Amino acid sequence: MSLSAADDRLAARLPSGVLREIAPTYLEEPRGRFHGRAGLVAAPRDVEETAAIIRACAEAGVAVVPRGGGTGLVAGQIMSDGPAPLILSLERMSAIRDVFPSEGVMIAESGVTLQQARDAAAQVGRQFPLSLASQGTAQIGGVLSTNAGGVNVLRYGNARALCLGIEAVLPSGQIMRDLKRLRKDNTGYDLRDLLIGAEGTLGVITAASLVMAPLPAENGVAMMQVADPEAALDLLALAQGRMAGGVTAFELISGQGLRFLRQHFPQIRQPFDDIPDWIALIEVGLPAGLGADAALEGLFAAGLESGLVSDGVIAQSGQQAAEMWGLREHIPLGNRAVGAIASHDISLPLSVIGQFIRDAQVRLAQQGDMRINCFGHLGDGNLHFNLFPAEGRRREEYDDIRRDLSRMIHEMVVERGGSFSAEHGVGRLKAADLARWGDPVRVQAMRTIKQALDPAGIMNPGVIFPAG
Amino acid sequence: MSLSAADDRLAARLPSGVLREIAPTYLEEPRGRFHGRAGLVAAPRDVEETAAIIRACAEAGVAVVPRGGGTGLVAGQIMSDGPAPLILSLERMSAIRDVFPSEGVMIAESGVTLQQARDAAAQVGRQFPLSLASQGTAQIGGVLSTNAGGVNVLRYGNARALCLGIEAVLPSGQIMRDLKRLRKDNTGYDLRDLLIGAEGTLGVITAASLVMAPLPAENGVAMMQVADPEAALDLLALAQGRMAGGVTAFELISGQGLRFLRQHFPQIRQPFDDIPDWIALIEVGLPAGLGADAALEGLFAAGLESGLVSDGVIAQSGQQAAEMWGLREHIPLGNRAVGAIASHDISLPLSVIGQFIRDAQVRLAQQGDMRINCFGHLGDGNLHFNLFPAEGRRREEYDDIRRDLSRMIHEMVVERGGSFSAEHGVGRLKAADLARWGDPVRVQAMRTIKQALDPAGIMNPGVIFPAG
Repeated sequence: MSLSAADDRLAARLPSGVLREIAPTYLEEPRGRFHGRAGLVAAPRDVEETAAIIRACAEAGVAVVPRGGGTGLVAGQIMSDGPAPLILSLERMSAIRDVFPSEGVMIAESGVTLQQARDAAAQVGRQFPLSLASQGTAQIGGVLSTNAGGVNVLRYGNARALCLGIEAVLPSGQIMRDLKRLRKDNTGYDLRDLLIGAEGTLGVITAASLVMAPLPAENGVAMMQVADPEAALDLLALAQGRMAGGVTAFELISGQGLRFLRQHFPQIRQPFDDIPDWIALIEVGLPAGLGADAALEGLFAAGLESGLVSDGVIAQSGQQAAEMWGLREHIPLGNRAVGAIASHDISLPLSVIGQFIRDAQVRLAQQGDMRINCFGHLGDGNLHFNLFPAEGRRREEYDDIRRDLSRMIHEMVVERGGSFSAEHGVGRLKAADLARWGDPVRVQAMRTIKQALDPAGIMNPGVIFPAG
Repeated sequence: MSLSAADDRLAARLPSGVLREIAPTYLEEPRGRFHGRAGLVAAPRDVEETAAIIRACAEAGVAVVPRGGGTGLVAGQIMSDGPAPLILSLERMSAIRDVFPSEGVMIAESGVTLQQARDAAAQVGRQFPLSLASQGTAQIGGVLSTNAGGVNVLRYGNARALCLGIEAVLPSGQIMRDLKRLRKDNTGYDLRDLLIGAEGTLGVITAASLVMAPLPAENGVAMMQVADPEAALDLLALAQGRMAGGVTAFELISGQGLRFLRQHFPQIRQPFDDIPDWIALIEVGLPAGLGADAALEGLFAAGLESGLVSDGVIAQSGQQAAEMWGLREHIPLGNRAVGAIASHDISLPLSVIGQFIRDAQVRLAQQGDMRINCFGHLGDGNLHFNLFPAEGRRREEYDDIRRDLSRMIHEMVVERGGSFSAEHGVGRLKAADLARWGDPVRVQAMRTIKQALDPAGIMNPGVIFPAG
């Protein structure tokens, strides 16, 4: 490892033993669009070392880029411009400090992977319900800093809703100790929720109290064919009316996504011989005594009767349920195999989703020949609206219109009261979008808070607010 | 209305027609411990008038005390020291601007009462699940500013969890327009959750997007006798294991509370002839097809078998269910009739509650002869732990030890990882407590934010941070 003179001076101020080799993975992000500057990588073992590193960086005037599992999709973990930052990896803070089964709470350090947190809850007969495709790699610190979503938000909320307290190092290098295990605590400003979703710009979360929810007595999974997203939403309303809060996931899958899978992952078993236009993937978690199968059969019958569904499959075993979810989780892999022109992580008010999708199809057709894979967490109004080259064309052929296409999509979303970043965050990728479309008073208040808590601007510069 | 010269100058800057007569109610709070200074009362009709009032106050250097229904219990709505403030009443901003039944969202102005919001949701076959005793008077703005709790937090979360977006006037007089109707929106700092629970010190919420949850298909209510709070918590775990997320409320009632009711509200029908030591009041909201009665009977049988419950009553009609809730809601009235020495709105990690109650009984017995009524939202770890004179003694006899008793209780709570304000907030009543027991780094960060957003300190001074 060769260090610049500035790095040398910083290294001398760090706690001993925290420096790591700069492996290439520290400088990469999953979509390969951003490449990080090589500086120092420090991996503290505890919160005190984390605080010492932040103070050393503040003194040396070196930026800090916190890093969890590195699975973020908006380049919050990658700084590709300006002087090389210190990469603060939470990988060594990977202890589950405590589990309180009867309280339904665990205390996990930021380097714990989401899968490990889920396993720890399962071991005591509970669940940590946050679930997303990258959970084997994504870490709790990153999941909280980006307020990650995933497939169970409909029932359990996003990461923010599953966190009762945090321990964090503020940009001043001070340690905020607020690892409460309380469902109710109205003692002043909600700094927990301010740091959650701040993407490392207001400090570094080092540990968190997480909710372990009770397990439903029965679970069931089904896939039902629907004519369009509006029918899917009506089916969701029907399901929620019948099952109280028992609908834990409600995902929309498009025929385009299924065709991509058939092409690139032919080994994935598809539920219907003819590829339908749209499928709703439904998971329910229910009280004892009802029978998840019976509940899903009842929903299917009611859906048929009201003309909302045309065909359906109810998983008859855990294996079949896992296959259905496997199909859903392969959709991003199918997308990657095809190669997207542009991806959009959007949310919309539920009542305008159907019209938005139709309007966007019309507008996009005017821009050129392309394919759309629209899928995602329909129950939350959160769609991944991704554009692909027409059959036989390459994505590079769309390079000159790609940015305009994204801008058009985002403008249509914002005009309809939606969000240009539903669950991935702003990062560096969308910092200019926030400046353009965010409510100006809100963005100004955000800047005021950033300036007050991090006057030197050392924490993850370029994220949320454009650099420079 | 006679105005001082300073008031005259401020009045001249206000939008026309916003001034109100200073009725005595503007200067009172429910417990009668604080009395407000009489200044101006302004009631804006819309957000622009609200902003103009804030700007006028900023220019005149007059403090602003926002006021909703006035039901708060920590004097957040009453400024009794210093120069008379302008009281900003949201009473005229009482429109439900929009209802989106298919989205499960309504847009309500801050002056809408909680009951009106609940009724608006019920009219479209949904529910606004926040519920508390003062809901006929409490207003949405106050409910959000204090992050109110109530009896359904266990299933639906507190006020914060039920709000998707806000419109607010910041201390600068600028209007933040963020009335999104989105379940997911990760576009920067969570200013919504920062203003929620800020008790009017960072601005004034003028309207909010509120979640209308689906109604459960079936509801049921029961009261079950338990030996102690630990047995009640075990019963809750048993219920949650059997009913997935279907337990919507789980309240603890003490024998002392029942004795107060028998004495002061003999017309309230009590469920058991002999007053038990403890009762759990349980409400469930379940999917169709299960039968709430059957589910509660099953729970009761399982509770009997495991020795957790000794007797029980399941409501056989909506009327009986309402009577059970009526009993629960009369408990604070019983308390008021007896006259408390001191009241405590505390929360604790669930696993330490039983031991805390026993420890506190021992410690209090050492301080003098008194009665304890401990009741509340056990499922959230939130207890109202209130002290009353011994039989035949007057509360005034305890005046010299009252503050020490509260301090002792709060210290015991804080030592055990609990909160000295679970759901009522800090207000002016507990500002010194926060300074004493809050994590110092957290409190300092709160001050930094307050200073940055409200440098002149005009918004609700003395709340959260001690005056002066």
